[in-house]
Amino acid sequence: MSRNLADPLLAPPDPAAAAEPLPAPAGPPPGAGPSLPGPTRSIVLVGMPGAGKSAIGKRLAARLGLPFLDADTEIENAAGMTVAEIFSRYGEAHFRDGERRVINRIAAGPPVVLATGGGAYADARTRRALRESGAVTLWLRADIPVLKRRIIGRSNRPLFIGRDPEEVLRGLMAARYPFYAEADLALDCGEDTPEVTTLRVERAILGWQRPARLPVALSTGAYEVVVGAGLLARAGGLLAPHLPSRRVAVVSDASVAALHLPTLRAGLTEGGFDIRAEVLVPPGEGSKRMSMLEEVLEGLLAGGADRGTAVIALGGGVVGDLAGFAAAVALRGLPFVQVPTTLLAQVDSSVGGKTGVNLSAGKNLAGAFHQPRIVLADTDTLGTLPPRELRAGWGEVAKHGLLQGPLWEWCEARGPAAMAGDAEALRHAVLESCRLKAGVVVADEREEAPEGGRALLNLGHTFAHALEAECGYDGTLLHGEAVGVGLGLAAALSARLGHCSQEWPGRVMEHLASVGLPARLRDLPRPFSAEALVGRMRKDKKVRDGAMRFVLMRGAGDVFTTAEAPPEAVMALLRDEGAG
Amino acid sequence: MSRNLADPLLAPPDPAAAAEPLPAPAGPPPGAGPSLPGPTRSIVLVGMPGAGKSAIGKRLAARLGLPFLDADTEIENAAGMTVAEIFSRYGEAHFRDGERRVINRIAAGPPVVLATGGGAYADARTRRALRESGAVTLWLRADIPVLKRRIIGRSNRPLFIGRDPEEVLRGLMAARYPFYAEADLALDCGEDTPEVTTLRVERAILGWQRPARLPVALSTGAYEVVVGAGLLARAGGLLAPHLPSRRVAVVSDASVAALHLPTLRAGLTEGGFDIRAEVLVPPGEGSKRMSMLEEVLEGLLAGGADRGTAVIALGGGVVGDLAGFAAAVALRGLPFVQVPTTLLAQVDSSVGGKTGVNLSAGKNLAGAFHQPRIVLADTDTLGTLPPRELRAGWGEVAKHGLLQGPLWEWCEARGPAAMAGDAEALRHAVLESCRLKAGVVVADEREEAPEGGRALLNLGHTFAHALEAECGYDGTLLHGEAVGVGLGLAAALSARLGHCSQEWPGRVMEHLASVGLPARLRDLPRPFSAEALVGRMRKDKKVRDGAMRFVLMRGAGDVFTTAEAPPEAVMALLRDEGAG
Repeated sequence: MSRNLADPLLAPPDPAAAAEPLPAPAGPPPGAGPSLPGPTRSIVLVGMPGAGKSAIGKRLAARLGLPFLDADTEIENAAGMTVAEIFSRYGEAHFRDGERRVINRIAAGPPVVLATGGGAYADARTRRALRESGAVTLWLRADIPVLKRRIIGRSNRPLFIGRDPEEVLRGLMAARYPFYAEADLALDCGEDTPEVTTLRVERAILGWQRPARLPVALSTGAYEVVVGAGLLARAGGLLAPHLPSRRVAVVSDASVAALHLPTLRAGLTEGGFDIRAEVLVPPGEGSKRMSMLEEVLEGLLAGGADRGTAVIALGGGVVGDLAGFAAAVALRGLPFVQVPTTLLAQVDSSVGGKTGVNLSAGKNLAGAFHQPRIVLADTDTLGTLPPRELRAGWGEVAKHGLLQGPLWEWCEARGPAAMAGDAEALRHAVLESCRLKAGVVVADEREEAPEGGRALLNLGHTFAHALEAECGYDGTLLHGEAVGVGLGLAAALSARLGHCSQEWPGRVMEHLASVGLPARLRDLPRPFSAEALVGRMRKDKKVRDGAMRFVLMRGAGDVFTTAEAPPEAVMALLRDEGAG
Repeated sequence: MSRNLADPLLAPPDPAAAAEPLPAPAGPPPGAGPSLPGPTRSIVLVGMPGAGKSAIGKRLAARLGLPFLDADTEIENAAGMTVAEIFSRYGEAHFRDGERRVINRIAAGPPVVLATGGGAYADARTRRALRESGAVTLWLRADIPVLKRRIIGRSNRPLFIGRDPEEVLRGLMAARYPFYAEADLALDCGEDTPEVTTLRVERAILGWQRPARLPVALSTGAYEVVVGAGLLARAGGLLAPHLPSRRVAVVSDASVAALHLPTLRAGLTEGGFDIRAEVLVPPGEGSKRMSMLEEVLEGLLAGGADRGTAVIALGGGVVGDLAGFAAAVALRGLPFVQVPTTLLAQVDSSVGGKTGVNLSAGKNLAGAFHQPRIVLADTDTLGTLPPRELRAGWGEVAKHGLLQGPLWEWCEARGPAAMAGDAEALRHAVLESCRLKAGVVVADEREEAPEGGRALLNLGHTFAHALEAECGYDGTLLHGEAVGVGLGLAAALSARLGHCSQEWPGRVMEHLASVGLPARLRDLPRPFSAEALVGRMRKDKKVRDGAMRFVLMRGAGDVFTTAEAPPEAVMALLRDEGAG
């Protein structure tokens, strides 16, 4: 395998790379002939015997202008005997070894269309080699009658010799479907002619965008945030390589479950997962309490969660915090998966490992650091969000923009499109937010940096927490909306203290207004007392030695923590902004 | 300081060493003249100016046949000027640097009696050097009128020149007492003559036994289990070097608090600790539940626990498990200290880092691994235990003996004496149990070893858990009593399966009976159904793939985990032992 290292085409795809548009940028629509230039990575067809991998593969290769290879033929050429002969002389294990070597070699070479034998993709090492080669894998699905008709009478399929084909097929499907589910794409080919199926395969491949994978490299181990469309439906295949077993328990809230649990359930089941428990909690911040944690724990255990069972949080920040805390303490720690379904959760709470519930003395006062094994940020779920919730999520995106710099200018340019539902803009916002946050979290995992570090993520939050606390978390003001106002106030305070230009606050507020977020105190539907707000700020968790701590800015990408903001200046600002 | 390494007298005491009897094994009773042979480590007197450190030190040195040194005199000799001159010319910081160097050098040399200046022991580096040198430090305490009388008119005390002596004394006491509290011993000298005080100091030193310190070296950091008498009263001084601040919150149960909280409180206060909260829970297993965890958390936060506040568990296993879990999740993790007050907790639950509460599906199903910063096992607390509880603790000691080997023979020889209250035997039992358990835990921190490892600590527990579950944890059967019967049954099963001699079970049961523990099913005050017990064992947490797991033995010190015990053999054994 040493030649892999020398061949740039064979280098594994850079997981930190942003969305990697697939092979051939479509060009003419499918059906209009082979697109040019040709795909830059191999396309590998997997599936059951008789699914048509060779028939489709040949036609697809011709359309895409790529060579076609059949793994079985390659193996026969290499061994100098038929697959049936290898099976009968040396047994299946020997055959699988050779098959793995041949497929690794082909996947590591220049782009081809490769049809694999039905058992190839059931081999974990082969799947891994294909994943790392950057090849696109597509699972051709057909049902039993179709497969049976195609199998019967073919003498070169050793697994079927002398046995009832339907029974063999059922056995193979049960054993292999969970592995096929790990393919990048799946397509039902049914009774279509090979020509029709080929066109559909081509369209699926050219229209597909590989989910972006963002690594979060912590001292205790690395995990990935996967950002893309259609991830819930593929959850089984996406999760399997990252979990110790195919046993899971799902925690969600009633509203999210109604929208997304069926899709997630189907995706998990396709991957051969046993869903031990589905625990639903009422939507809303009120569920972040100890008694609800107890209910979730009881539900997980009653469902039969054991030490190998992963807890999946399907929902927004509340579900993520609660389910993550439950995963941290159930049986003293279960593997955890975040499947955030709100923009706020995708860009913020699903990265960082903080889990917890509220106590009467304040928010998030009990909890654990418990990192997920993987985060699936399915951007399709954002389409089902109420517009106000989508906008509220943008509050954190804008904050990340201000922390990062160039991302702020992108926010100004593309924010309105994202809020109008532009999928690519949302995807970029999620990915870049997670990248920024992951960088900050990795540098200060347990929030121990005396200055800067994770505390920078509190930009706008000293104000936001005070505003939320004044509203009593009653829904008048969503967290992201409070962050919007907080960002405006932080910019205004920075200007008053001479840290940034006098124009800067206006620019920040203008962007927030352009996406429909409140940017000023007077945008909010209720009055606030300046004194009450400052009183809240003095009790913030971040207060040290009695001094309020703020995150201030000199401009986009240039922010800092300080305890030097004079309370009188804060008070005057709030009054000037309309607080009583 | 490199000479320290070459001089065996100067090597820091081996912290793994068992109880190290102090200097001179007493010989003639105090007052009968200097004891021979002389002490092997230096004796260092600390305390306020005017406490009599020099006057007592000289007399003590003469009685013990050791040289006497006065740190101030040594500093003056080294500097060629008086302390007052060093102060006025170079300032206090310069003086403290020189003082530290001189004391370090003396403490690292052959045994002497050393009187230190009043500020010396307030220096953290000096305290640490003295601790590591193995010297015995004694705090001479005197009250203000006494000190004032001795101070007035002495010109060589620069801190007092031109100031009101009482005011200076009060300021120094407030600043230094928390540090003096870290001395090994404290003695009030009051109005006694120097001769009387010297005799009392000598008696205190010769009668003192240094607490044993057992290191538990985990991958995430090391901590010590301190075993000895009188630790609660010295808690402040013992804890201070191991905690990030002098803020603590104590969790205990009402019964234990009545007996031991006043002593602990005084010990903490003497060390300058601010006790932010004292949270008491009802005694008994019933407190190990989620709603009680919530109450403890609310109590900690309402009292003002912040990220630097350590949670101290004062009590038995229930308090330790509950308080430890609270410490693990309050503000996502506070420093934790175990102060176990039962034999069971001292020998078992305070080492290992497991914390948690029960759920309806079973015991300890929610929790966290949260290691203490230090464990104080004060053997004096064992004197207040009801005899039945003391005996129950021996169940785990006997188990550790069986796991370890030689400790088993010690148990047979000294177990009855320990149960009769022999302090030295109890101390040995605690220390060696912790040593055994620490070794097992360090080798398998998170209970992940497939065979052996922490699972060995379940010797006798497959039976014990089933017996306890059958009794419904109603107090009929204490955990340690169930372990006693479990050890007997494990020995009997081992013999039936041919792993040990036929005589072995009798020997195990004989020892258990000799300390007053139940050793056989028929010793218990209620009947059991063999079928019900086997049913319970099949549902044990340790069951894997449906096979019951047992820890069996070939003899003392030779135990192993197995899933190979045939259920019929277990059933037959239970029936033969009297189960219905």
